Amino acid sequence: MKDHKHQKEISKGFKKYEQVSKASFKFFSAVDKLKINLQSEIVPVIDSLNRVLVFDFKSPLDVPPFKRAAMDGYAVISKNTTGASQTNPALLKMIGRLNAGEKSGLKVRPGTAMAIATGAKMPKGADSVAMVENTSADSDRVQIFKQVEYGKNVAHVGEDVQKGQILIKKGTLLTSQDIAIMSSVGVNKIPVYRKPRVAIFSTGNELVEPGSRLTESSIYESNRYMLSSLVKESGGEVVDLGICPDDKKSIQRRLKSALCYDIVIISGGTSVGSKDFVPEVINETGRPGVIVHGIAMRPGSPTALSIINKTPIISAPGYPVSAYFAFFTFARPLIMKLLKTSDSHVTTIDAIITKTLKLHQGMRTFLRVKLDKKKQGNNFKHYAEPISATGASLLSTLTKSNGFAILDNKSIIKKGERIQVITMRQVGGLD
Amino acid sequence: MKDHKHQKEISKGFKKYEQVSKASFKFFSAVDKLKINLQSEIVPVIDSLNRVLVFDFKSPLDVPPFKRAAMDGYAVISKNTTGASQTNPALLKMIGRLNAGEKSGLKVRPGTAMAIATGAKMPKGADSVAMVENTSADSDRVQIFKQVEYGKNVAHVGEDVQKGQILIKKGTLLTSQDIAIMSSVGVNKIPVYRKPRVAIFSTGNELVEPGSRLTESSIYESNRYMLSSLVKESGGEVVDLGICPDDKKSIQRRLKSALCYDIVIISGGTSVGSKDFVPEVINETGRPGVIVHGIAMRPGSPTALSIINKTPIISAPGYPVSAYFAFFTFARPLIMKLLKTSDSHVTTIDAIITKTLKLHQGMRTFLRVKLDKKKQGNNFKHYAEPISATGASLLSTLTKSNGFAILDNKSIIKKGERIQVITMRQVGGLD
Repeated sequence: MKDHKHQKEISKGFKKYEQVSKASFKFFSAVDKLKINLQSEIVPVIDSLNRVLVFDFKSPLDVPPFKRAAMDGYAVISKNTTGASQTNPALLKMIGRLNAGEKSGLKVRPGTAMAIATGAKMPKGADSVAMVENTSADSDRVQIFKQVEYGKNVAHVGEDVQKGQILIKKGTLLTSQDIAIMSSVGVNKIPVYRKPRVAIFSTGNELVEPGSRLTESSIYESNRYMLSSLVKESGGEVVDLGICPDDKKSIQRRLKSALCYDIVIISGGTSVGSKDFVPEVINETGRPGVIVHGIAMRPGSPTALSIINKTPIISAPGYPVSAYFAFFTFARPLIMKLLKTSDSHVTTIDAIITKTLKLHQGMRTFLRVKLDKKKQGNNFKHYAEPISATGASLLSTLTKSNGFAILDNKSIIKKGERIQVITMRQVGGLD
Repeated sequence: MKDHKHQKEISKGFKKYEQVSKASFKFFSAVDKLKINLQSEIVPVIDSLNRVLVFDFKSPLDVPPFKRAAMDGYAVISKNTTGASQTNPALLKMIGRLNAGEKSGLKVRPGTAMAIATGAKMPKGADSVAMVENTSADSDRVQIFKQVEYGKNVAHVGEDVQKGQILIKKGTLLTSQDIAIMSSVGVNKIPVYRKPRVAIFSTGNELVEPGSRLTESSIYESNRYMLSSLVKESGGEVVDLGICPDDKKSIQRRLKSALCYDIVIISGGTSVGSKDFVPEVINETGRPGVIVHGIAMRPGSPTALSIINKTPIISAPGYPVSAYFAFFTFARPLIMKLLKTSDSHVTTIDAIITKTLKLHQGMRTFLRVKLDKKKQGNNFKHYAEPISATGASLLSTLTKSNGFAILDNKSIIKKGERIQVITMRQVGGLD
């Protein structure tokens, strides 16, 4: 337990920063022990985009469910076309026409053919389809100008999907393709995890809501809006608890009202100033309290990770860039953990850095960069121009960038080195 | 205008396929001439994620709006700390305390200091902040153990954002960072383009809605569900017009009811079968009608691009994989064009193909691949394992892939060649 003496110590700055990997390990192991289980909920497949599938989705049927024509043309017995050519076509009697969705009692017997549309069920007797492009027909006869192989242009039962086959694994963040394949096997409702409810509030007497009048010495709130959007993008549901004044009683009241949600994110009040009460209030509110406070990352070092009872709490620093990377490093993986998914929407791009930079050794640096795609011969190379490695308070370093690199344990990074950049917005168009 | 004779020709297969670039040029130039102008709508900034900004967003104010402390510590006159060290600290009289959001009438005069929190407005007289880590204080005195440079730890007016500066360009697809910076300059409502309304219907007597009973010779509808999700992901609003029977009258009725929307997407009925009425119906319904029909792409060659009056119409083939790439190639850029944005959410990754493949020369091939990220020394390389270059009817070729490559004018692609892969779902995690 933290005592008064310890609080005094941290009010003089962080004694020690925990490495990001160690902080994550401590926090996420503690979260694991809580065994948080989000309920699942049944949603229409059409509304399941970007939701997380609860179970392995197995196909209840074969696709196609019957043998069907894969091309427009004539259902034939392949050996009736043996040797057929432009100058010596096979001549077959036309016994009817089958469109998709229709069925026929007629059977294709030797010397006959049936006109058939793509997707129509193959009539009995026929084993293949002569493509319409290689035929000429009048109302009761068809000429076939090209020999048709056995089974040609026929889609077989289960060719696309077999009954019982796992089509989508549990934990998948569902895409349009997944929605298509679930529909194609006749399923219109599926269980997905309920979205984790993430309560967010900001602390700070200096904060004023955008849209209202700015008073002297106050600034506009922005973190809560950014964090809310990030929560939505990461698959969570936002519960907005507003701005809380900088006093212990108010913070404790607000915190208590937040503990009924799945995750709490608090912006501000987590550094070493005399008004930075958040970690102290957390420890006074419940157990186990603060797990890690002070993390070897820049921006974001004042981040605190806590648990009260069954609720994980992420205290993001008040500086917006710090809050962004605290979210990325801890809140996003936490939401994904609750959703039991490893799909994260994150794309990394291999890029070449355009400048030499000194870094703070022993810290994880989130280097904001501007990625640029350049053609080199037939290929493309990405170049990363550093925008900022510091400037935690400068939101503009985030909006001017379109990606960031995570640089660990390096005191320097040299021009021309390759880095992995995580994209934050569209990078170049298609060709 | 297309006449009966021409219809007869295409019912025997496409005479000629238009190259994708030429088809795009024809279609999009015709769309440009329509001068479609989506109205803008005012939305709360917090709800503007992934919407498209109508104008250049200029800051109405400086951020920070006043000179403020960038660190917790003591506001001092820097020259009062000259030569200060651990053994020879500067001793200053403490005249008060300033928290963020507070203001003070007190002035820091030579020999005095004021305790100050990060974000608090700098008091008059002080020019810099001594970090709390380098000080020791009791109630009325503070010792400074390290010389403070002029201006140190002070954030200046407009350091982050200057009044009048363009912060976000028009046409930007808004991100969380954009939401943060708009909030930080006090703006809570902004104009974005109204979402284009995209009417979608499928044609096909063989189609049955998922969730209902499959009858003999019928299959489940999946394209409409996939296309709807793709429209939503691309920033459009879906108007679902259901499944339409395969007869000219029904299709024409459905088409007419769709023309009041911004875009129409029709799935199916666009190939060369006897029931493929869509292009014919379009030409009979209004002018200019079909602009391109039959495109040199695989899958997706039966795609038709049309306009009736002021409404662009994309006829996607009934095969789901074809419909996916028809959407990607024409519908997505069309939605983006209406939204006047070039941000497209698309990320391309440079990858090495793991197998030699023969391709259909003169056609654009959409090669579905499975991307795999492998560590090589300190870097990563992506490998692309081909899943399928054909199989337009096999939805499973889409769900098994996590990306696709666009291959133009190649008859062969060899193992080890580099390709640009467009990601369709999460590729590998972070390290």
